Amino acid sequence: MHDAVLAAADLRAMLGADAVLAEPEDLTRYESGWRYGKGRALLAVRPGTTAEVSKVMAYCHEQGLRVMPQGANTGLVGASNPDASGEMLVLSLERLNKRLEIDPINRTAVVDGGVLLSTLNGALAEHGLMFPIDLGADPTIGGMIATNTGGTRLLKYGDVRHNLQGAEAVLADGTVVDVMNHLRKNNTGLDLKQVLVGTSGVYGVITGAVLQVVPVPRQDATALVGCASGDAVLALLKALERELADVFTAYEVISANALSPVFKHHDTIRNPYGGSKPPAYTALVELSSTLPETALNLPEVLEERLGAFLEADGGEGITDVFMGKPEDFWAIRHHISESLRNEGKVLAFDISVPRSRMAAFTDAAVALLAKDYPFVRCCDFGHWGDGGTHLNLVWNEAESPRPTPVIIEELQSRIYELAVRGFEGSYSAEHGVGPHNQRFYDAYTPEPVKAVNQALKQQLDPKGLLGTTRLGPRP
Amino acid sequence: MHDAVLAAADLRAMLGADAVLAEPEDLTRYESGWRYGKGRALLAVRPGTTAEVSKVMAYCHEQGLRVMPQGANTGLVGASNPDASGEMLVLSLERLNKRLEIDPINRTAVVDGGVLLSTLNGALAEHGLMFPIDLGADPTIGGMIATNTGGTRLLKYGDVRHNLQGAEAVLADGTVVDVMNHLRKNNTGLDLKQVLVGTSGVYGVITGAVLQVVPVPRQDATALVGCASGDAVLALLKALERELADVFTAYEVISANALSPVFKHHDTIRNPYGGSKPPAYTALVELSSTLPETALNLPEVLEERLGAFLEADGGEGITDVFMGKPEDFWAIRHHISESLRNEGKVLAFDISVPRSRMAAFTDAAVALLAKDYPFVRCCDFGHWGDGGTHLNLVWNEAESPRPTPVIIEELQSRIYELAVRGFEGSYSAEHGVGPHNQRFYDAYTPEPVKAVNQALKQQLDPKGLLGTTRLGPRP
Repeated sequence: MHDAVLAAADLRAMLGADAVLAEPEDLTRYESGWRYGKGRALLAVRPGTTAEVSKVMAYCHEQGLRVMPQGANTGLVGASNPDASGEMLVLSLERLNKRLEIDPINRTAVVDGGVLLSTLNGALAEHGLMFPIDLGADPTIGGMIATNTGGTRLLKYGDVRHNLQGAEAVLADGTVVDVMNHLRKNNTGLDLKQVLVGTSGVYGVITGAVLQVVPVPRQDATALVGCASGDAVLALLKALERELADVFTAYEVISANALSPVFKHHDTIRNPYGGSKPPAYTALVELSSTLPETALNLPEVLEERLGAFLEADGGEGITDVFMGKPEDFWAIRHHISESLRNEGKVLAFDISVPRSRMAAFTDAAVALLAKDYPFVRCCDFGHWGDGGTHLNLVWNEAESPRPTPVIIEELQSRIYELAVRGFEGSYSAEHGVGPHNQRFYDAYTPEPVKAVNQALKQQLDPKGLLGTTRLGPRP
Repeated sequence: MHDAVLAAADLRAMLGADAVLAEPEDLTRYESGWRYGKGRALLAVRPGTTAEVSKVMAYCHEQGLRVMPQGANTGLVGASNPDASGEMLVLSLERLNKRLEIDPINRTAVVDGGVLLSTLNGALAEHGLMFPIDLGADPTIGGMIATNTGGTRLLKYGDVRHNLQGAEAVLADGTVVDVMNHLRKNNTGLDLKQVLVGTSGVYGVITGAVLQVVPVPRQDATALVGCASGDAVLALLKALERELADVFTAYEVISANALSPVFKHHDTIRNPYGGSKPPAYTALVELSSTLPETALNLPEVLEERLGAFLEADGGEGITDVFMGKPEDFWAIRHHISESLRNEGKVLAFDISVPRSRMAAFTDAAVALLAKDYPFVRCCDFGHWGDGGTHLNLVWNEAESPRPTPVIIEELQSRIYELAVRGFEGSYSAEHGVGPHNQRFYDAYTPEPVKAVNQALKQQLDPKGLLGTTRLGPRP
């Protein structure tokens, strides 16, 4: 048992009194995630510079104190929340947010790890630029790197990894690793920052980054397209992409089971299908472009392209086409999760499979449920353009033959097995490993990959002090 | 000294007689690179499947035989050529070229490591797709991954890393690592393939890959723009990018010193400046798009945008604008290196600096030469859009005060020091480390990065049998 009082005194002497929080009421907000994760912290420490992070880590290393680096704690797998032991020191990066330098000609931003995405985008907007990762939360940049955030516009812009030029990290023993590369081309052996991307902070605390940023689009266009089947959804994707790749930013797809509850629970959201039953799938197609309207009329291009597809053979699976305002259509997409929660118990998944197998995978999941879980409804929606699907399973707990935790465990095991082994898919498309997905990491990660993880951990954090996610073989 | 006769017999028993070459005349073509590298091979072995690669590696591991994996050996830093010892077995991947599966809806290609880029693009063309890495050689895909090839269209498409979804590799002891991910989104901890990208094959033999591919553009447009200064080149880049980012594929820049020799030595290449002296820099702007001409008129957009820039304040640094055919303008670009070789001794560099510092860096290099090497002419050209510059230094050896090898060593040390320490740049923008850049890797790689390299080598190739590049601390 570590002595919180002693550690707090030592750290206050190092960083100043207000950098260290030790009272239970002050610790509460570092002990629960935005949506998931709940634990207890020994202390919370809030360094304001990389040098201070280094001092804290060196101290913890010497003392054998376990550390949980924490940004905005908006992750969905519990990877940035202290565990229940009460032994972990939360290293909050909320004050490490001073650096924010924009180079408009290099099209890069240098930021501290604790800078919020919204703050960064606010500063970039003055230069007509943005960091193109688009998501519902407001995380810190350090957290986004540790998670390798994807989001809804990955089709055009890629994930964080694709937009990261350099990084700075503090290792478990306090060593500062500076690979703050500002270069688009730099082939000088191992690209160390790749080891920090998507590894939940277990190899180092990300204290800084060089981000590649992009011009803000000047126009966009959106359509909702009713599709009679998953195969029609894929045929449309392929056809649109061949001509529109340069301006194609999102291809979100919503099943009838996920769509109907949105209108049922929200009078203010307009149902384009009116009183009719929606088709099997509704695709939200979004285009955007930096080109001015004088050069390219995006709504016209989209309408023309959809019309051409309808006329061609491929059009037989299309039931409806609605052109409209992006905000109206995205409102539908953004109200799905909440609407489903009004329908019963919800179990959400974050699955990816190869895009070409999305329809077959979904059909197989529906068949599995019909056979063994007839009381469960499959309300799937997701980023079909990226091969991602947030399969949401919904049921009435009163109709369930076994207790909810048992059903959840069964469904997770069955559905992930289907995705990973049956369809070359992933149990975590974009949320990461973390404690929530630890058992699936253990089950599905190839042994040589685990061995490399272990070698890296041994090199970078030999005492095993950082984080709660275990990348490597089971001890 | 290993017994070549014995090893050849063992390997023939394993793979069949024609898979193993041992006669000096048969070995010649595995002993010299396309442009650089010369050594001697003990044997050359040509496995046809990943399982055979695994058998060869297991055998070599047991015997303690050093191995040089080799694709088309087109690299520019000698990283795929056996050294002079005559002790290395060349593991040629030329027969590992059977897998080539295209999934048009997933927009991916699964290939064996020994498939040539030209073969891949030939097969993709039937689907209206391409692998967007554009370069002068015809390498194997495995070699491209080990080099992380960039090329001339990185501005739009990124490097190999950006277009790689999965990989398969055989480790030094014969273990097959299968991370043949077909997914755009897959966040399940360490992305092991990143360790194989750009590391010259020292961690494993790349036997397979899943590549993300893109639709072939339907149209393009090109202009040459005369710029009075490096600052004007950068102002133009910034202005064009804000509106044209979606369709902006290349921004190549040629100094007057690099341009004039092209016309001097090639009567057939038309000089757009006629008899006049070219301005300080000439920028080659290339746009391309998947959008049809009915939706977007690229030449018109480019001309209009250049006109708007000329009219605005930023236009004062622009001396000329020539619209023209891509093939004509690229012919100028592709004849530079050869033309300079007619002018004297050439020392080529592969430098990158942040784009915003390209002009200042080039000015500093010119000033350094003027002061200490007045007999050397700076003939720079490169991918300014990516921050890359192939600084070519040219001189008359008869005018040199010291022997050529001494001058070369001095200039490399001085120019790389200026780029790396003075301008946050890189001594290898895209060619990689290899024996040619080993001393710069040693000088400029941060110690913690070297330590991680060493830990990975210890894990993946503990006997140190693979390749000649040493990533890690000096022994």
